[in-house]
Amino acid sequence: MIELTTSLAEATAEVVRRVQRSLVVLHNGHHGVGAGIIWGSNQANKKRSGTLILTNYHVIAHGRHLRAELEDGTEHPARLLAQVPEIDLALLEIERDNLPAMMIADSHSLRVGELVLAIGHPWGQRSAVTAGLVSGLSTAQTRDPQKSIEIIRSDVNLAPGNSGGPLVNANGAVVGINTMILGGDQAIAVPSHVASAFVEGALKGD
Amino acid sequence: MIELTTSLAEATAEVVRRVQRSLVVLHNGHHGVGAGIIWGSNQANKKRSGTLILTNYHVIAHGRHLRAELEDGTEHPARLLAQVPEIDLALLEIERDNLPAMMIADSHSLRVGELVLAIGHPWGQRSAVTAGLVSGLSTAQTRDPQKSIEIIRSDVNLAPGNSGGPLVNANGAVVGINTMILGGDQAIAVPSHVASAFVEGALKGD
Amino acid sequence: MIELTTSLAEATAEVVRRVQRSLVVLHNGHHGVGAGIIWGSNQANKKRSGTLILTNYHVIAHGRHLRAELEDGTEHPARLLAQVPEIDLALLEIERDNLPAMMIADSHSLRVGELVLAIGHPWGQRSAVTAGLVSGLSTAQTRDPQKSIEIIRSDVNLAPGNSGGPLVNANGAVVGINTMILGGDQAIAVPSHVASAFVEGALKGD
Repeated sequence: MIELTTSLAEATAEVVRRVQRSLVVLHNGHHGVGAGIIWGSNQANKKRSGTLILTNYHVIAHGRHLRAELEDGTEHPARLLAQVPEIDLALLEIERDNLPAMMIADSHSLRVGELVLAIGHPWGQRSAVTAGLVSGLSTAQTRDPQKSIEIIRSDVNLAPGNSGGPLVNANGAVVGINTMILGGDQAIAVPSHVASAFVEGALKGD
Repeated sequence: MIELTTSLAEATAEVVRRVQRSLVVLHNGHHGVGAGIIWGSNQANKKRSGTLILTNYHVIAHGRHLRAELEDGTEHPARLLAQVPEIDLALLEIERDNLPAMMIADSHSLRVGELVLAIGHPWGQRSAVTAGLVSGLSTAQTRDPQKSIEIIRSDVNLAPGNSGGPLVNANGAVVGINTMILGGDQAIAVPSHVASAFVEGALKGD
Repeated sequence: MIELTTSLAEATAEVVRRVQRSLVVLHNGHHGVGAGIIWGSNQANKKRSGTLILTNYHVIAHGRHLRAELEDGTEHPARLLAQVPEIDLALLEIERDNLPAMMIADSHSLRVGELVLAIGHPWGQRSAVTAGLVSGLSTAQTRDPQKSIEIIRSDVNLAPGNSGGPLVNANGAVVGINTMILGGDQAIAVPSHVASAFVEGALKGD
């Protein structure tokens, strides 16, 4: 019977390993750090080979000298390609190629009660992980009272430094971008399908 | 190996689905909401078909115009049948039949370390779920210092709005009624065997 | 599918059962209690049969009349054998034999993302359990700024009374000694390989 918990422990560690190599630390020239997701190579960029990094808008807002630190410890200047404060997302590019992209899941198929993991840099601690369940799938109002956005609520423990990092499913694929903590213990993420549409629009120059 | 976490995610989502359809939102005419459990049809009631709803006493105390909101969004006036403040339980009835009753487990067989899920409406968020383990099985003093009641402690994250909702086991059956948060992070539930005895007594007119 | 969550619940309960019988409550003559781990019989002691208890230094510091309470409720005077404040560990001995020692894992093989359980006496609640994942493996500075120690970070919910108790892996073997809570929600444990080296050194009279 105890073999089951042991197998589960190996499986969760494997999911984490899968995700960590595609996670970056974002430095914005201020105190504190945020997280970023290696989204893939920028194929809209014909001139040179670049890699797309997705993060929260609030991680890079007012930032200067944005730098992305890879798992190998190297740091690379990051250029802002697009940002949409209303959904708290921003897209950056660094001049590196052949970096491992994170798997992206379709968050439309996410179910309440599913196991999820959040990986980021809470309180500056690198690549730390915490697990929980999807608590609810709902909507939140934006600053414009006539607009609302879809959100994922979960009971993972987020902290400053998780922002911009992935909420992944049991398979290690991104289902959301960790964005906010409400009421002390509610973790809020922007669904990956919202993030995918944002990236697609940004590359088309919308 | 990762198939295990994926299967686990599907299983927890399925447990949640099983429970949600038997969960109600209780409105008491004041701000805030509580949770209630569809306990079964009221077979003691020969005159008309009614459904029993179990909740915490403190959810409905001082309440007027009690209403139970079903998963389909319809609201139904709820009549108070019985209440016992010492164990923080109350039994209501609504005039509806053929509602799906929650499965009730025998909490005598609950073990410390078992996986449990709490489902309710924390901070008004509908049918939200959080998971944890049974931390301890103990007793707590009531306001009468000579009396004590059995309680279940767990490490699930409760919030206002979880009160009256179920703590379920890995099978989706009710093992406790979520009742209190102590010391910021200890969740307290009244065992389902205490709740079953309360309902039985109430229907007999004890 | 739901059989999986049921099996998992049985497995976690079994892990807890395995650990609880080797856990002690430590009374230090002050308010509050700490936890201690039955480490094994003291084979360095030729004169009489004694059992080693490992705990945090801060649980017994300034303590008088140290007593260890076993799972059967009996209390035994505990003698301090060794202490190292820098790694917050202390080794005690009680005059009892044939007590079940906890299994000790090699924390060198611990992986980020592994399932772990913390067992102790949070807020005085006996043998309570909480579960989480290993969040990170890192180092922390000691009071001597030139020295650092290895630590295990996890997302389990600790509280006063967990100190000195075990962080166990999915197999029920000790991987760390729960020692501190940082920033409200980060649990810090001293790795079991540090604890093993401390005990070995203490018995050799280092």
